[in-house]
Amino acid sequence: MAPDTPSPAVVIPYEALLEHWQGHRRVTRRMIQAFPDDALFGFSIGGMRPFSAMALEMIRMASAGMRGLATREWPIVYPKDAPTPSTKAELLRLWDETTDEIEALWPRIPPRRFQEVDKAFGQWEGVVYGLFLYWIDNEIHHRGQGYVYLRAVGVEPPAFYDRS
Amino acid sequence: MAPDTPSPAVVIPYEALLEHWQGHRRVTRRMIQAFPDDALFGFSIGGMRPFSAMALEMIRMASAGMRGLATREWPIVYPKDAPTPSTKAELLRLWDETTDEIEALWPRIPPRRFQEVDKAFGQWEGVVYGLFLYWIDNEIHHRGQGYVYLRAVGVEPPAFYDRS
Repeated sequence: MAPDTPSPAVVIPYEALLEHWQGHRRVTRRMIQAFPDDALFGFSIGGMRPFSAMALEMIRMASAGMRGLATREWPIVYPKDAPTPSTKAELLRLWDETTDEIEALWPRIPPRRFQEVDKAFGQWEGVVYGLFLYWIDNEIHHRGQGYVYLRAVGVEPPAFYDRS
Repeated sequence: MAPDTPSPAVVIPYEALLEHWQGHRRVTRRMIQAFPDDALFGFSIGGMRPFSAMALEMIRMASAGMRGLATREWPIVYPKDAPTPSTKAELLRLWDETTDEIEALWPRIPPRRFQEVDKAFGQWEGVVYGLFLYWIDNEIHHRGQGYVYLRAVGVEPPAFYDRS
């Protein structure tokens, strides 16, 4: 802690963290839209997953993760009845449902919850802010991979810096 | 703000933000190391930059950015005398110098500075926490692209989740 500041000090406001994530999620949604349908589900490089599988991971992690943060009961990330979209429209519909779910659950996760230690999905122990940042970071990481896929199939990706 | 919490509330502690970034930077350093020398400077997909150029961008943005946050005077990101490494060893040396620079400048950036509005590099206006997060996000984004490059040349990348 810097010597001239009281402890603890706010660096990133609580509400800004949600907006930060949703801004990233808007970029990712535009990525899904930008993919040609066949490439979304079929194209990959170096034995990696197609972008649709990465996007579904983001959806599942966000949905199960937010429920875990809000209820302290961690659901299975990929339950047997989890939807497995096979078209871009289905994937986008799931994406939008998850956006609504995040907005609905956020008010049930007060700032102090972010300082608690928990075990995400019953497996990954850490302070909640770290677990939460991991989901955002994981989305940016895989979306970056999607940018290479898109360039490789000759499509200009959406601007990384535009979070509107 | 959740109704049951006082305003403003800490979500991510000040010190944790630096450690979060340096953890990501340790992963990125391992990525640079994992690249075969020729691929680091020569391999790319879809007309994108080689990973060495992305890593140099991370270095320059971190170095100039931290100086801007600490001094309120924004240096040029790529000044004419900026080093342009042509070997992995030089790139790693620059990386490590930047790591030290970040650690040295961090105590000069108190938490309240993160709430100020500033214009990064004289161009990008925003609240400082947003400008700062952008550098981390940009690093994760391009490093994710590097993962595809590495897989494409048949090298197993370092684990994304290991920030040690």
